[in-house]
Amino acid sequence: MKLLLASIIFTIFTSLTTAQNDTSTPLYKEPHAPIEDRIQDLLSRMTLEDKLSQLSEGDIAMWMNLTDNTFIPAGLKVLELHSGQFYVGHTMPPSWLAENIKIGQDYLLHNTTLGIPALVQTEGIHGVRIANATIFNSPIGHACSWNLGLVEEMAGVIAKEASALGVSQIFAPLGDLARELRFGRVEEMFGEDGFLAGEMGFSYVTGLQRGNVSATVKHFAAYGSPEQGLNTGPVHGGERELRTTYLPSYKRQIIDAGAYSVMSAYSSYDGVPMITNYHILTEILRDEWGYKYWVTSDSGGTDRALEAGNDVELGTRAFTYQGIPSLVRSGQLRQEVVDTAVSRLLRAKFTMGLFENPYLAVSADELNTVMHTPEHIALARKLDAESIVLLENRNQTLPLKKTANITVIGPMGDFMNYGDYVINGSQYRGVTPYKGIKAASKGVVTYTKGCERWSNDQSDFPEAIAAASAADIAVVVVGTWTRDNTELWNGGATGNGLNATTGEHVDVSSLNLVGAMPHLVSAIIATGKPTIVVFSSGKPITEPWISTRASALIQQFYPSEEGGNALADILFGDENPSGKLSVGFPDDIGTTPVFYDYLNSGRQIVDSGRVFENGSLLFGHSYVLNSPQPLYEFGYGKSYSTFQYSSVELSKTTGVKANDIITATVKITNTSNRDGKEVVQLYVKDVISSVEVPNMQLRGFEKVLVKAGETETVNINVKVQDLGLWDTRMRYVVEPGEFVVLVGSSSRDIRGNASFVVE
Amino acid sequence: MKLLLASIIFTIFTSLTTAQNDTSTPLYKEPHAPIEDRIQDLLSRMTLEDKLSQLSEGDIAMWMNLTDNTFIPAGLKVLELHSGQFYVGHTMPPSWLAENIKIGQDYLLHNTTLGIPALVQTEGIHGVRIANATIFNSPIGHACSWNLGLVEEMAGVIAKEASALGVSQIFAPLGDLARELRFGRVEEMFGEDGFLAGEMGFSYVTGLQRGNVSATVKHFAAYGSPEQGLNTGPVHGGERELRTTYLPSYKRQIIDAGAYSVMSAYSSYDGVPMITNYHILTEILRDEWGYKYWVTSDSGGTDRALEAGNDVELGTRAFTYQGIPSLVRSGQLRQEVVDTAVSRLLRAKFTMGLFENPYLAVSADELNTVMHTPEHIALARKLDAESIVLLENRNQTLPLKKTANITVIGPMGDFMNYGDYVINGSQYRGVTPYKGIKAASKGVVTYTKGCERWSNDQSDFPEAIAAASAADIAVVVVGTWTRDNTELWNGGATGNGLNATTGEHVDVSSLNLVGAMPHLVSAIIATGKPTIVVFSSGKPITEPWISTRASALIQQFYPSEEGGNALADILFGDENPSGKLSVGFPDDIGTTPVFYDYLNSGRQIVDSGRVFENGSLLFGHSYVLNSPQPLYEFGYGKSYSTFQYSSVELSKTTGVKANDIITATVKITNTSNRDGKEVVQLYVKDVISSVEVPNMQLRGFEKVLVKAGETETVNINVKVQDLGLWDTRMRYVVEPGEFVVLVGSSSRDIRGNASFVVE
Repeated sequence: MKLLLASIIFTIFTSLTTAQNDTSTPLYKEPHAPIEDRIQDLLSRMTLEDKLSQLSEGDIAMWMNLTDNTFIPAGLKVLELHSGQFYVGHTMPPSWLAENIKIGQDYLLHNTTLGIPALVQTEGIHGVRIANATIFNSPIGHACSWNLGLVEEMAGVIAKEASALGVSQIFAPLGDLARELRFGRVEEMFGEDGFLAGEMGFSYVTGLQRGNVSATVKHFAAYGSPEQGLNTGPVHGGERELRTTYLPSYKRQIIDAGAYSVMSAYSSYDGVPMITNYHILTEILRDEWGYKYWVTSDSGGTDRALEAGNDVELGTRAFTYQGIPSLVRSGQLRQEVVDTAVSRLLRAKFTMGLFENPYLAVSADELNTVMHTPEHIALARKLDAESIVLLENRNQTLPLKKTANITVIGPMGDFMNYGDYVINGSQYRGVTPYKGIKAASKGVVTYTKGCERWSNDQSDFPEAIAAASAADIAVVVVGTWTRDNTELWNGGATGNGLNATTGEHVDVSSLNLVGAMPHLVSAIIATGKPTIVVFSSGKPITEPWISTRASALIQQFYPSEEGGNALADILFGDENPSGKLSVGFPDDIGTTPVFYDYLNSGRQIVDSGRVFENGSLLFGHSYVLNSPQPLYEFGYGKSYSTFQYSSVELSKTTGVKANDIITATVKITNTSNRDGKEVVQLYVKDVISSVEVPNMQLRGFEKVLVKAGETETVNINVKVQDLGLWDTRMRYVVEPGEFVVLVGSSSRDIRGNASFVVE
Repeated sequence: MKLLLASIIFTIFTSLTTAQNDTSTPLYKEPHAPIEDRIQDLLSRMTLEDKLSQLSEGDIAMWMNLTDNTFIPAGLKVLELHSGQFYVGHTMPPSWLAENIKIGQDYLLHNTTLGIPALVQTEGIHGVRIANATIFNSPIGHACSWNLGLVEEMAGVIAKEASALGVSQIFAPLGDLARELRFGRVEEMFGEDGFLAGEMGFSYVTGLQRGNVSATVKHFAAYGSPEQGLNTGPVHGGERELRTTYLPSYKRQIIDAGAYSVMSAYSSYDGVPMITNYHILTEILRDEWGYKYWVTSDSGGTDRALEAGNDVELGTRAFTYQGIPSLVRSGQLRQEVVDTAVSRLLRAKFTMGLFENPYLAVSADELNTVMHTPEHIALARKLDAESIVLLENRNQTLPLKKTANITVIGPMGDFMNYGDYVINGSQYRGVTPYKGIKAASKGVVTYTKGCERWSNDQSDFPEAIAAASAADIAVVVVGTWTRDNTELWNGGATGNGLNATTGEHVDVSSLNLVGAMPHLVSAIIATGKPTIVVFSSGKPITEPWISTRASALIQQFYPSEEGGNALADILFGDENPSGKLSVGFPDDIGTTPVFYDYLNSGRQIVDSGRVFENGSLLFGHSYVLNSPQPLYEFGYGKSYSTFQYSSVELSKTTGVKANDIITATVKITNTSNRDGKEVVQLYVKDVISSVEVPNMQLRGFEKVLVKAGETETVNINVKVQDLGLWDTRMRYVVEPGEFVVLVGSSSRDIRGNASFVVE
């Protein structure tokens, strides 16, 4: 009834205002006119207030009361002032969203003078953050799959489910790098490496935008390494580090993939807030890279944001941009600056065809046939399984026989341990580890929690120990956890959110398991039963003793809704593990950062000491009682198969020019009796350089299926132009000299190399 | 006898060569000629090989066999090729050094064509690193004294003891900042703050050079924050951070104090090795700052070092610079570059009067009256006592009655726990905590080791517990340790040095006490006897439970040879504690960095969680289970007195100009019945700025003695010119607007504030 009322009022508005429209079609509405002409034409018709409205964000909550679900007629007038885009990421039924999105968009199209459609926005790093949409595993996991095709497919599903509701812009992917492991948002990123993150995001943007939904590459730039690991903290680094390490992933996602929008970061870089960073937002992003579309802030803004190159203000609480018209009229802000910002947004809208197809939503009846389909769910399972990393497998404990009697233990054992950015209530749908294992098993499967996630209470240990003693195999699922966005931000006594150990604004000083969990693992291992430990987490966990004492150790980053099935696929060998770590695992937070691509002068190790489990001490120097190397390095992951690498052949080794492409060829033989996939990784080392460069850098990879006993030839192309450095005068140059191509199964497990010389 | 032989051979050399000298006095030997004329005259007489020799370092070991103590006549010819400076920091008797230094210097003066005296070099960050010299406490401790006068006096003593032996250059002080606490060299630095480190080093340079010994400000620049805390690791940072945070301490020491030499760092900054960093060594150091003297490498060098602005090559193992003459002759290196480098070194030598007074050594008979005098020893005690920081003093446990029966416990309790850069064998001289306490006490004082430093063996705990039970008071001395330079580098089975937990090339991943030590502390506290814990260490220790459970907690950074006496002075109240931390103490390595001057956007804390001692958990968000704040902040330290601060008065509050000096006035009242010294600290906050700046910065301090019940007026001047920032275009500007002056007893314990407005 309430919705009906809204429709009626809307109709009245429509009839009142459509009469005022000009009957001749203005140039900007001509689909076949050149886009730049359409932009100029439309700009010439806009008042300063129209322009301000484009640069401001609305919210469906303006015209729809989210609590009592009533229509707020006056809200459409408010929308008119914030009509560039509007946000719809609320916990409401899909059909409700589809219907009410259309009300807002129709109002803008038909009841405003110029009829400019809005972009309709929500979150979606691992599935549209809307009830009923398919939930995929978290991005840190996607990157462990090294499977670009699956990520592109996932983004296609996200676009399909988003546009079915009328959503045309998703705030994803992240170009940020997970190089500061204390930071709560590690799980949202594609790992520590810029090349891998660039490729992953490229695939995401490609898949999403092919579905006519705009990606938003965030958080530009260098957001992932805040001081102390604290949310929104300043990032320390120089111009060379920015260009060498941080920018390439964004550039690949923004420029090469052609993203239609970019979100600037909360953080500062070398003391300049990104929101006002003219050098990065304009001199680099626009002038050097040629980015033509728009940049939105992540929330709020400052007086100087617009001039720096941040076009649009996100968030309806602050509204700093409202001063823009008066600043222009008083001469303090140049009209061209405003026009440039508006034209960037309009360019995205015209290019997307938004004026011609302002919403792609399907009818309410059709929604069920588009959202959360069996194909989408199957893809979630497939991607999740390929993201799981087998860290240890002592005495071939895995794969398990389906007839084995298994007890699942641990607080994450029968719980949907989703990563950040899911909608309230998501935890109640999906396949938990216990349910997945039970579904696949032909034996007896039991579950005992053992302890709560958030407690040091060990009183339930005896029950868990008894269950382990009664079973053939124990699978202990422990890790970190986050919350859906409502619980994470608004829950709890403090109003700062319910307890969690990862997620946005949830930062840690230790990567150890908390509370009773490590003791639970220890107690189950002590039963003597083969114990498979599963880390269900959003970031690396540092309990190196588990690596040596568990029978097997599996890393499953925050799962998809099919997480339990994907885990069972791996445990029983229906899927052969093929995930490789997207981020290095340290022994302890005190040894970080352990990324593989440290500069040449880094990680000079004299000798490493150690504290043994019995407390005895071996003294070293780097460090005195630990190692600065990762326990598990970037690119690491075991398979049930074994792969042999041939020597590396290069298509050219001398007289190489900067515009050449070198093809590295290696043959991979599966020497096991089980089909398996191997991620062949290609790193390049610049032997002598005028400035310090990373000791090696990933420059190509291919995930290849090799059948048991067979051999596949893998060709990986390296663009020599990508092997340059930023010299002492910050010029990009490919320096003459020797480069070594290292090919291997991880960043440490190099199986072969070959050199070429750039002249 | 061997020395006699050397002298004879030397005499023959002398008689053979002096006959060749020109009888007219060349201009460069005229003491009253302008220095620039003398440099040009001398340069014009030098061959390329003469110049190379100036840019190279010799070693007394060239002409004296350090093992069998024989003279090596041919070695003087080798010296001739490396004669700019020579190194003498070996474990030999003072009289031996004085005599054989003279042989080398005499040879250069009389047996070479031009007779250019060498600078004679050794180490000396806390006392000349030569047997018998007075050993002061370590620099991290000096900075805790906040007593510039005492540091200047100390440097004067170092100069006196150095020059008595013929030494004319000391490799100190450090401008580096202790902002990466894992780094082994934290103890060598003047703490985390650039202003304090600048003032400390200024006093050191002033005191040393007044004694006609050249300081060497090292390690230029930004050496103290290596990646992963690993020795010689790359430093990450931008140009703005370099200028805002890292450079000011060096500039104060080099330019304001007029240091005659600078040592470049091993590390790189933003990917450019300091040794080849033209931007920092030439564009900043020479062109912007106007530094006129020379820069030496720390070891080795590269082809580009000279052109970058690194004049001299240190170390006799590598000899990259030997290619200089042929590079000049083949046109690959400009003659002017070489001449500029040589002239910088010569300028230092002429300015110091080295040609007129090539050695200041006293006679062997006089050595005993100059070295290690009672006055020097008393100064070591005084400075050490003022460096001790009282962290906790529950129920006024301290000061102790002299009649109390005390047991001293712990592996550092009867051991000279010297910091890095002492000569082999130093540990066998000096006053240990036990000996110092025993000497001052009128009661029974016992000592029990309890455990070894390097072991987890607890078998001696019962003896220590029994001793505590039998005494009135237990003083437990635990901490970190390093070694003398011989044991640290050459000792042990690996040849990488004996075990240690701090010192050069000894880096840690944890700041916890190692082995049995924390358990020993716990066991002694558990006896119920009042337990005073003394951290004897080179860096902060992270055992926050000791802070709440010990009766009192004292931080004594690595001591002087009078360390035990200084500690007793504090314990018994003969000295009222007046030290304030030069570096913040974190709760755990995982919360670092905890420096007080984080950028405005840093350390945004939602709420902090905690793990309680019983294991129960309080969940927060920043961090989930810890606090990003320091446990003890920069500037913190207790006294036996209490001080009350008046409100802050400023000499000017409006219409302030960039060249003004503002005087802040505050009255300090000692409200206790004991005389005491307070370190009044003045911080400035820039309220609104165009780029991010530190949330506050130390800009002045004064250590003032306030008698019991009395009031002292403290005036602290602030140069407004020092309150600028480096804007988005890297211009230094004092921006108009409000600045808040915060005056307090620590960086957290602010007692008053006042504002002024720059127009």
